[in-house]
Amino acid sequence: MTDPALATGVIRLDPEDDVVLAARDLAAGSEVALGDVRLTLLDDVPSGHKVAVTDVPEGGQVRKYGQSIGRATRGIRAGDHVHTQNLGMVEEDRHHEFGSARVTLPEPAGERPTFLGYRRSDRRVGTRNYIGIVTSVNCSATAARLIADQFRGPALDAFPGVDGVVALVHQSGCGLVGESEGAQVLLRTLRGYAAHPNFGGILLLGLGCEMLQLDLVTADLELPDDVVVERMTIQGEGGTRATVTAGVEAVRRMLPVVGERRREPIDASELVLGLNCGGSDGYSGITANPALGVASDLLVALGGRSVLAETPEVYGAEHLLTRRAVSEEVGTRLLDRIEWWRRYTADGGGSLDNNPSPGNKAGGLTTILEKSLGAVAKGGRADLSHVYEYAERIDGRGFSFMDTPGYDPVSVTGLVAGGATVVCFTTGRGSVFGCQPTPSIKIATNSALARSMPDDIDVNAGRILDGDATVAGVGQEIFDLILRVASGEKTVSEELGIGQDEFVPWQLGAVT
Amino acid sequence: MTDPALATGVIRLDPEDDVVLAARDLAAGSEVALGDVRLTLLDDVPSGHKVAVTDVPEGGQVRKYGQSIGRATRGIRAGDHVHTQNLGMVEEDRHHEFGSARVTLPEPAGERPTFLGYRRSDRRVGTRNYIGIVTSVNCSATAARLIADQFRGPALDAFPGVDGVVALVHQSGCGLVGESEGAQVLLRTLRGYAAHPNFGGILLLGLGCEMLQLDLVTADLELPDDVVVERMTIQGEGGTRATVTAGVEAVRRMLPVVGERRREPIDASELVLGLNCGGSDGYSGITANPALGVASDLLVALGGRSVLAETPEVYGAEHLLTRRAVSEEVGTRLLDRIEWWRRYTADGGGSLDNNPSPGNKAGGLTTILEKSLGAVAKGGRADLSHVYEYAERIDGRGFSFMDTPGYDPVSVTGLVAGGATVVCFTTGRGSVFGCQPTPSIKIATNSALARSMPDDIDVNAGRILDGDATVAGVGQEIFDLILRVASGEKTVSEELGIGQDEFVPWQLGAVT
Ligand SMILES: [Ca+2]
Ligand SMILES: [Ca+2]
Ligand SMILES: [Ca+2]
Ligand SMILES: [Ca+2]
Ligand SMILES: [Ca+2]
Repeated sequence: MTDPALATGVIRLDPEDDVVLAARDLAAGSEVALGDVRLTLLDDVPSGHKVAVTDVPEGGQVRKYGQSIGRATRGIRAGDHVHTQNLGMVEEDRHHEFGSARVTLPEPAGERPTFLGYRRSDRRVGTRNYIGIVTSVNCSATAARLIADQFRGPALDAFPGVDGVVALVHQSGCGLVGESEGAQVLLRTLRGYAAHPNFGGILLLGLGCEMLQLDLVTADLELPDDVVVERMTIQGEGGTRATVTAGVEAVRRMLPVVGERRREPIDASELVLGLNCGGSDGYSGITANPALGVASDLLVALGGRSVLAETPEVYGAEHLLTRRAVSEEVGTRLLDRIEWWRRYTADGGGSLDNNPSPGNKAGGLTTILEKSLGAVAKGGRADLSHVYEYAERIDGRGFSFMDTPGYDPVSVTGLVAGGATVVCFTTGRGSVFGCQPTPSIKIATNSALARSMPDDIDVNAGRILDGDATVAGVGQEIFDLILRVASGEKTVSEELGIGQDEFVPWQLGAVT
Repeated sequence: MTDPALATGVIRLDPEDDVVLAARDLAAGSEVALGDVRLTLLDDVPSGHKVAVTDVPEGGQVRKYGQSIGRATRGIRAGDHVHTQNLGMVEEDRHHEFGSARVTLPEPAGERPTFLGYRRSDRRVGTRNYIGIVTSVNCSATAARLIADQFRGPALDAFPGVDGVVALVHQSGCGLVGESEGAQVLLRTLRGYAAHPNFGGILLLGLGCEMLQLDLVTADLELPDDVVVERMTIQGEGGTRATVTAGVEAVRRMLPVVGERRREPIDASELVLGLNCGGSDGYSGITANPALGVASDLLVALGGRSVLAETPEVYGAEHLLTRRAVSEEVGTRLLDRIEWWRRYTADGGGSLDNNPSPGNKAGGLTTILEKSLGAVAKGGRADLSHVYEYAERIDGRGFSFMDTPGYDPVSVTGLVAGGATVVCFTTGRGSVFGCQPTPSIKIATNSALARSMPDDIDVNAGRILDGDATVAGVGQEIFDLILRVASGEKTVSEELGIGQDEFVPWQLGAVT
């Protein structure tokens, strides 16, 4: 990604692109500067829509994000408005290829960036130091909250090294089909949280007679030696009141131990970055998402982990990711998940359709490839190294994909269960998402949002649209903020206390 | 239901029964008294198992709960242990008939019982006077909680007439298939809570860009004129902090108005009783459930509403309910729901199987009819007047069935959405369930549980097993407690503060 043409009214996302984006409504005859070149607009071009910067012959590829978004359905001249009247797709644009679009990310120059993290004894690195209360079933939800409530406000003043006590409550754990995919997904999620490096202590809390027993949560789960673990059931303790008393005592015993953990300088490559968006708008794909993609590529170039998710937003353009796959096996794993989604949504009485809606088209999106690339732009251009199922441990380095729904809390819960230690979340409409125990950096796609909900936005990528910042510049800002947040700086959602009710494991299958 | 033979070691559930239940392990040769008659046991009979009190010829019906649980597969003599060796089912025992087992409940004698309730201007009657915060989507969950948190503890001391502020938060509301059955069920649930007579004030709280808009929640919803309603979205208010401030102010404005509502004497027939069980054991069907059935019949005889639920527990013996149906239409509605469940569980990778498990059999349950009757016993013997879908308004008088999963929080959420103003909940293993805004009375099936979890149990029906109380006597106790609780007496789960995290709308369909 390179600098857009600033203060000229257009945004260039990639130097190889055939199109740039109007940052505001531009009239036919306007001149815009592209570096040293000046371009005269041949049509009126609404804000967010595409303008050709090169001639493209009929049938020629048109590139945006440095990648093809379709072909010219008739000859396009530099200065033309590029949209449904002159851009379309042919079937071969959707052929599955593996690894045909791999890139070499630029070597990072200079000193390697670091952050101050918590190195656990299993070598994984946390960005926070919470105590977590992991519940096996909804029946222990209230007890978990009553315990956590005792540690709000000044109750933790004596333990500045502890970020808080998080009650991870959910709505399932019983009344589900044992051995089913849904039960496995819930179990994987709970195990992922129990082992998350942002926890220095874990209290496992069950009812006693539930289907999803605590023993299943902990079976073969290797927790770091320096993480304090206690467990209890309400039936074993003799009821709610006795359990809350025992649970509060258990947390009190943990506090001095967990509070002694200290941050230390850690190479940035030890970060696990989760990528997400919610409440997208017409600017997501040209401001916040590409800027986040720059930050993701910076991390991946250093050897870090960055994970894209939200399968429904990739649907229909999955070949754009398989072309970035490091192997046919990785690409095939993605295609298998897409196939699973076709069945899942059909069973659920719906269908997946990621084609641009009338609203999307009014906003300037022409093809499904372009729409998908706008979402996928959060993941930059790095090779796709791994494909994970929901809540699966993110153990491989590089850029990966995790199969999750697009729905924010469910998607991010999967990423955090997989081990994400920082989440970046782009929003155009104004999501207020947060997700304890992992900090979530929220990035606005437009300045109007950043102004109307200032307490809920960490970064305003809308400045790109305003001509006050570049995609690359905001990307670097996001990367720098990731390091600061990983080192302990609080995000706005942490300041607001958001993140316990947003623990939402993907619920699959029948409730019985 | 009549008195069991007390202090003789056996429990008789109905005077017409061919069997009684051993209240403890009884040896062959023991004598037990049944009224004036003495019976000598011909076999060893374990606790909870059946003993014949009459001779039954091969092929003859064997009755328990006053209803057939199968046929003698060989001749049975009074004093025999009745179990798999001499009791079974033939296909005709499962024929569907409509209305063939209707009963006339005894006329209530004496003065009509009343309770002190809140009469709303739409004539519905509440048992509590809460302010509810109804959220359209998970994205407004944290804001709702932050608002409700401001009204915990002494904050409401100036408003003794207000029971509290309840944040009704859930995990869905977006990322679901619009127009799908799942979206409809969620909407019906939220609308049912918004209109619940236990709320004197409602704050409707959304994010703004969610799929399930607040307008859908309130469309055509007729709320009583004397219920205070306010609404806001986080995006409309300018973010989380502004919303919490505005929400707290909205609730503060409601408090003096809602706090002026007063309880008044109301005929018991205005109660809506929800029936449920969770963590059942071998004693559920012979102590707590039949006793609750007595209370249910008392209410129905007065013209009140009592609603059984938990379709999977009825499955396989649904003809026992259709025989009680007041019309073929009502019976057919139940059978249609059963058919729906067959597909639902098959799609969910499971299957419905309500046959007695090896553990059930060891506990003395022989046939699916007997097992189902043990669950259905919560609903007494009254005619089945209505069949409701999940969260549908319970508008008809008498005894009804609502189609819900067996899973406690999901089942009771449906009942409360339908308008249940008191819930009775039986448990053998020790559930700690509660459900704001409706009080939930918890009834233990055995005394060991009542002793081990005293703070979580309202009524110990295990005294029936101990020989210290009768089914009819405990049933009357439960009925009397229902009236006191409806009048304001707190249940143990209310004392403990349980019930917000147990708001769990049934989630159906795909998460996208
Ligand atoms: Ca070109
Ligand atoms: Ca999302
Ligand atoms: Ca007989
Ligand atoms: Ca009301
Ligand atoms: Ca239940």
